Amino acid sequence: MPFTYAKTVHFGDTDAAGVVFFANYLVFCHEAYEEALGAAGIDLGSFFSDHGVVVPIVKSEAEYLRSLTCGDKLAITVTPRLLGPDSFEVAYEVQRLSPTAKRAARVRTEHVCIASSSRARQALPAPLASFVGAA
Amino acid sequence: MPFTYAKTVHFGDTDAAGVVFFANYLVFCHEAYEEALGAAGIDLGSFFSDHGVVVPIVKSEAEYLRSLTCGDKLAITVTPRLLGPDSFEVAYEVQRLSPTAKRAARVRTEHVCIASSSRARQALPAPLASFVGAA
Amino acid sequence: MPFTYAKTVHFGDTDAAGVVFFANYLVFCHEAYEEALGAAGIDLGSFFSDHGVVVPIVKSEAEYLRSLTCGDKLAITVTPRLLGPDSFEVAYEVQRLSPTAKRAARVRTEHVCIASSSRARQALPAPLASFVGAA
Amino acid sequence: MPFTYAKTVHFGDTDAAGVVFFANYLVFCHEAYEEALGAAGIDLGSFFSDHGVVVPIVKSEAEYLRSLTCGDKLAITVTPRLLGPDSFEVAYEVQRLSPTAKRAARVRTEHVCIASSSRARQALPAPLASFVGAA
Repeated sequence: MPFTYAKTVHFGDTDAAGVVFFANYLVFCHEAYEEALGAAGIDLGSFFSDHGVVVPIVKSEAEYLRSLTCGDKLAITVTPRLLGPDSFEVAYEVQRLSPTAKRAARVRTEHVCIASSSRARQALPAPLASFVGAA
Repeated sequence: MPFTYAKTVHFGDTDAAGVVFFANYLVFCHEAYEEALGAAGIDLGSFFSDHGVVVPIVKSEAEYLRSLTCGDKLAITVTPRLLGPDSFEVAYEVQRLSPTAKRAARVRTEHVCIASSSRARQALPAPLASFVGAA
Repeated sequence: MPFTYAKTVHFGDTDAAGVVFFANYLVFCHEAYEEALGAAGIDLGSFFSDHGVVVPIVKSEAEYLRSLTCGDKLAITVTPRLLGPDSFEVAYEVQRLSPTAKRAARVRTEHVCIASSSRARQALPAPLASFVGAA
Repeated sequence: MPFTYAKTVHFGDTDAAGVVFFANYLVFCHEAYEEALGAAGIDLGSFFSDHGVVVPIVKSEAEYLRSLTCGDKLAITVTPRLLGPDSFEVAYEVQRLSPTAKRAARVRTEHVCIASSSRARQALPAPLASFVGAA
């Protein structure tokens, strides 16, 4: 069972077309990723600051299937998968829950673990490897 | 008892100083305002779109008391108060809940109800008057 | 020659890792798209509001090649290409100009023209077809 | 003569009411503050990262006088003023330039210089004192 993040669309997420601005789907998915990391016991405050090893996103892909409006309730599933010793992907499904549940977007991010000084690739730290393998 | 909105700080809310960017405190408070409106039975989808009457924010004030970081859990209280037949204010207290509860910001927004075509001031619609009076 | 948009990275674009948040690369590219449309004589105020025909982004892809920090000067090129009578893509190259010019990201968005009420696909309006063909 | 920052409103700055979201006026003013600092010879990359001394915003106030829409050209003036040995304010005027020049907002931010470890107030570093005094 993938981790699921519950999210409400807020007014500041929308644009003058009346719907969520396309880049904000990625913001929502990053929130879901953070909540999934937190649920796996990873401390977000230190994970996202630079302690010698960083895990930047190197790729993103999104398919926008349905527009979302202020007040919409969403469920975003988070499915990580190992790509190599130093990289993984996360697949997200964004569902709009009402009036009837509909898939609103499919998003994918790709992450690589590097030493922040040398930019050399590093094996995933154990808690992150566990998150990717276990989730 | 004021309405209270529970919020987690996410990575996208922070800036290169490692803490929440000052303008995002206002974004958080607007989310709290929306949730309070929703809890009072007001439909957000139609409230924030233009149906002849709009309720723009005409003033904001914020005191930033403590910095906030990724993963912080917040409680934001929402206290509306009538200012006149066509205007109201909303006072917000942003509390950081852990490690110990501390007030992180005090924010205030001022709202005026106008006809969207003529820009003339209008009495608050009944559901909004009830929200302001009852909350 | 593709249209080029000059952009400075601002503090609010960054996150607690000290660099531009990944979703903001897409925000920058959308700004470049708007400037390219404007340079082609398309009125942005009406283009992005709903006049019966809307042109939502249905896909985005991004490769993040280099991190960007506050104060960085960027040049973003915008290269549209027709995909069919009712759709087009826009390819973006994000260059960081200093200290030496380096490609920082490659981004691609895909756009479909639809009737906003029926959601049926529509031929691109003439000014947009001209933008896609001529640029 | 105050420093003036030229800015175009972009689609991502707007919300479902069709106009710029209130918190984004503050984002625009912070951009203007950064450009003014840069024009005064202050390196933004290091100014906004933590080198022992930080200059957080402790207060903001904004009056929203006119709505702004996608494509609007703005001129934002930046007027800093010393408040004490360790603090200063910045006043901003946001002008919408077309169709006719109109004041769209008045914004004020208050900044305090502190040691980042002890949080004790510090005298403004010389380049910042010069910015505040000279501008």
